[in-house]
Amino acid sequence: MRTSRFFLATLKEAPSDAEVISHQLMVRAGMIKRLAGGIYTWMPLGLRVLRKVERVVREEMDRAGAIELSMPAVQPAELWQESGRWEKYGPELLRCKDRHQRDFVIGPTHEEVITDVVRKDVKSYRQLPLHFYQVQVKFRDEIRPRFGIMRGREFLMKDGYSFHSSFADLQREYRNMFETYTRIFTRLGLKFRAVAADTGSIGGTGSHEFHVLADSGEDALAYCPDSDFAANVELAEALAPAAARPPAAESMQKVATPGRITCADVAEFLGLPLIRTVKVIAVVVDPEAEKPGPLAMILLRGDHNLNEVKAAKQLGEFRFAREDEIIGALGCQPGYLGPVAVGERPIYVDRSVAAMADFVCGANEAGYHLTGVNFGRDVAEPTLVADFRNVVAGDPSPDGKGQLELCRGVEVGHIFQLRTKYAEALKCSFLDEGGQSKIMEMGCYGIGVTRIVGAAIEQGHDQRGICFPAAIAPFEVCIVPMGYAKSETVKAAAETLYAELSTAGIDVLLDDRNERPGVMFAEMELIGIPHRVVVGDRGLAEGKLEYKGRGDAESQMLPLAEIGAFLKARLCAAS
Amino acid sequence: MRTSRFFLATLKEAPSDAEVISHQLMVRAGMIKRLAGGIYTWMPLGLRVLRKVERVVREEMDRAGAIELSMPAVQPAELWQESGRWEKYGPELLRCKDRHQRDFVIGPTHEEVITDVVRKDVKSYRQLPLHFYQVQVKFRDEIRPRFGIMRGREFLMKDGYSFHSSFADLQREYRNMFETYTRIFTRLGLKFRAVAADTGSIGGTGSHEFHVLADSGEDALAYCPDSDFAANVELAEALAPAAARPPAAESMQKVATPGRITCADVAEFLGLPLIRTVKVIAVVVDPEAEKPGPLAMILLRGDHNLNEVKAAKQLGEFRFAREDEIIGALGCQPGYLGPVAVGERPIYVDRSVAAMADFVCGANEAGYHLTGVNFGRDVAEPTLVADFRNVVAGDPSPDGKGQLELCRGVEVGHIFQLRTKYAEALKCSFLDEGGQSKIMEMGCYGIGVTRIVGAAIEQGHDQRGICFPAAIAPFEVCIVPMGYAKSETVKAAAETLYAELSTAGIDVLLDDRNERPGVMFAEMELIGIPHRVVVGDRGLAEGKLEYKGRGDAESQMLPLAEIGAFLKARLCAAS
Repeated sequence: MRTSRFFLATLKEAPSDAEVISHQLMVRAGMIKRLAGGIYTWMPLGLRVLRKVERVVREEMDRAGAIELSMPAVQPAELWQESGRWEKYGPELLRCKDRHQRDFVIGPTHEEVITDVVRKDVKSYRQLPLHFYQVQVKFRDEIRPRFGIMRGREFLMKDGYSFHSSFADLQREYRNMFETYTRIFTRLGLKFRAVAADTGSIGGTGSHEFHVLADSGEDALAYCPDSDFAANVELAEALAPAAARPPAAESMQKVATPGRITCADVAEFLGLPLIRTVKVIAVVVDPEAEKPGPLAMILLRGDHNLNEVKAAKQLGEFRFAREDEIIGALGCQPGYLGPVAVGERPIYVDRSVAAMADFVCGANEAGYHLTGVNFGRDVAEPTLVADFRNVVAGDPSPDGKGQLELCRGVEVGHIFQLRTKYAEALKCSFLDEGGQSKIMEMGCYGIGVTRIVGAAIEQGHDQRGICFPAAIAPFEVCIVPMGYAKSETVKAAAETLYAELSTAGIDVLLDDRNERPGVMFAEMELIGIPHRVVVGDRGLAEGKLEYKGRGDAESQMLPLAEIGAFLKARLCAAS
Repeated sequence: MRTSRFFLATLKEAPSDAEVISHQLMVRAGMIKRLAGGIYTWMPLGLRVLRKVERVVREEMDRAGAIELSMPAVQPAELWQESGRWEKYGPELLRCKDRHQRDFVIGPTHEEVITDVVRKDVKSYRQLPLHFYQVQVKFRDEIRPRFGIMRGREFLMKDGYSFHSSFADLQREYRNMFETYTRIFTRLGLKFRAVAADTGSIGGTGSHEFHVLADSGEDALAYCPDSDFAANVELAEALAPAAARPPAAESMQKVATPGRITCADVAEFLGLPLIRTVKVIAVVVDPEAEKPGPLAMILLRGDHNLNEVKAAKQLGEFRFAREDEIIGALGCQPGYLGPVAVGERPIYVDRSVAAMADFVCGANEAGYHLTGVNFGRDVAEPTLVADFRNVVAGDPSPDGKGQLELCRGVEVGHIFQLRTKYAEALKCSFLDEGGQSKIMEMGCYGIGVTRIVGAAIEQGHDQRGICFPAAIAPFEVCIVPMGYAKSETVKAAAETLYAELSTAGIDVLLDDRNERPGVMFAEMELIGIPHRVVVGDRGLAEGKLEYKGRGDAESQMLPLAEIGAFLKARLCAAS
């Protein structure tokens, strides 16, 4: 492609509503253009990236044995009523009436439609398993669309649905898809992690999310660099400390801690490490019951944070106690709470705290804490010891293979074992080998194609713009001639190189616009082209061209005759 | 591809609502599946065809210098209000409200959106011309969707929009697109005609329709086999006969024609050729005026039909006279009308009739006609001689290069010179070389991608099923082994051939299902695969395979070693 035949429209300034870097850079690079909130036109530059993502996704889905079809965007309400989601989906589901006042939806997902196709066409176990997929436009009426195409309303998705005669076969395909998604994100050149996930609203059991790692990601992840363990921080298990609780060595003492209400303040004031402190969270368990339980305490180490999902799993429904309830029960305001001398009150203790001796906690008296506190002696043994906290960096990995690290991720893929949720609702059955009618087992597998583009930019950018992996860059190589219109030598060399690289199957952009070098360099860096070749009279006089990789600190001069092989080797190494 | 890894689901019976052959065959072949009226899922087999059409369209649009982008399906109402189409479009425009009660449409076309993109990004004549296109899902809420995907509600369209600094440059691009569309339909392997068309509701002036020729087509076309003239029958000009009106040879006579009211009946009764008769159509011109004109007559030759568009062009607004008006004015019921002795009544005469002498017409008396009627002597000379009729086969071509033939066509493409209709409404302007602000000239260019698939089947089918051109067949070649599971020799030969053809880049389907030969043959013919190779023990014993083209009457035996080159030559010749 030549810039003179293409449409580049970069901007100096990012729009004021662009909160995240990928949104800013995509607009500045001219990849997308806003039509309405969360609705974007993919401009030629952006579309090239999108299509490259699509191609890799398609190739790997085909290789995995999934079969592509294409379902409508506009779907009749009847199917959604049959599945029950017409009521359940809420305002994210864009609904409309056709000219005959019949209800339709603009599909946010296609479980209903594909299940309808399969129940009509598939009757026998001999036709199973089947896996259909599509790459298709979806619409979800997000209440607050933001981050550009990262959380848009109209977006492109690869959604696949598999149908099986047994749960075992669903599990086989689930593993197949796990491997396929791993290959896809690897080929796309992205750093990613597959994490065990909650299934969310789509229903069913057993699922993994695929996250592109990026500091700005919405999701906090915990992973083990020494194994393939990864999980949402909220879901990762905090193991019990390996060492048992040491015996008590100190006697309990009451110390004045005026105005120190956080563990960090108290630790600093007392000159003790934060991990010697214990914080108390006052909760009311089963708050909706006729007689809610007494005010209970959850004990966490000073440097740890409560994980409400884990707590709810242990305690059932609960809520945080109000300040007046706390004062009424303990005679003390929050900030100085502790488990000493609280009578029969339940004390729920995190595993880390259960292994502590001689710890510091509030004295249930404003302005005072206790030091040298010990279970069994000063405090009753815990009512329950369990995992109540979020993991932190350095915690042992739950798979026992090293220490956890924390990072943030952008969810770009999700695989589910739906089991029979939709097949049951829509009566999607088959005859098994014995002639018995059975409900099919289903899996579903999604990739946010548009979101991958944003996630790749969140992961790869610097102060000059986007750093795309070669596999999804709008062009793999740019040729920047110094004086295309002025120097016949430069023009001829640039054209020869352009022809040579194009013939070799390299996706190359020749900048034939006669812009100033600084403008061309800045633009090619902004839009994220990974390899740049500068053609100039000075270099040509020595038979050389100037090469610079997008991430390189310095450029290098390479002989004309070697540049083709050099670039091919670089591109090959990247893919 | 192997049938065992693909999803074939052919049906014995066509659905009862399928009126046209393409709809019947697409459903029977398992290419599409109905989700709602005019809304279909493209099953894997159909999608393969659709994607092949898409690819050719894309390649030729890219080659022509158009730049691909992708606009949203869901569009804000504001733009449609700005162009005025929010009111004008009517119920074909599917409208909806988002969760914030803002109005949106599901785009049936994208003039507004692209003009909005261009007015924001393009400011100078130096950025022009520009041509953007997309291949994108559209929705039109047809009042009566029918013919399967031929007149569906949701469909795939290639829509392109070009922007120019002058009308001359628009005309250049229009010619470029005319040639591009010609290349596209040629490469798709379809018999087609480009016809000068009325611009319809999309607005602007200057347009051509591209029609795939098929007996079942909705549009009647006139074309000249000796030139590239083609037009909608309604728009083709009927030239005046070359020969001047001969002198009168007969005297006028009144003959009894009891019960003969059509020209054909009268001609037969009198033993005269139909072309000697003249029919009279009584009309009221300017019927809404305060004082409508008197009852007027349009005279056509007995074998010709009135073209109301042409008549309206000559007469302005008019309507057919009611029977009571005719009896009141002429004292005679319709069927026996004639232009003799009608006083000052206007007589509008088709060119063919103006050149007639000694003709037959009604006597304005029930049961009687006149023969030997002549202008000047028996009838006043015409008030106006003009083209009032549809052309018929055998008429001279308006370009003077031969005789017209008639055929029917399916419109699959349409190119328009929109001029400034949308650019003006949306204030899409640029600064010209002199720094003056000017409105852009626009062209738009559509191809009905889904409809092409239906049109190809309307054009290519026989009693056994679909006959696809190789360029868009779901597979180019099928290999049908006789006893894949039983004969190791057959299996090995089939697999070797499959590998050889696949490696050569041929899109081949290996039927490895172990169905009965008759079932496999019937299915491969139904789905329209153009080339079939049968692998059987008998042929292999002689080192031969059986080949049959989809349109061949007989199969032929070919040596194993030659089959690859043979198929490549056939496929190459077809493309």
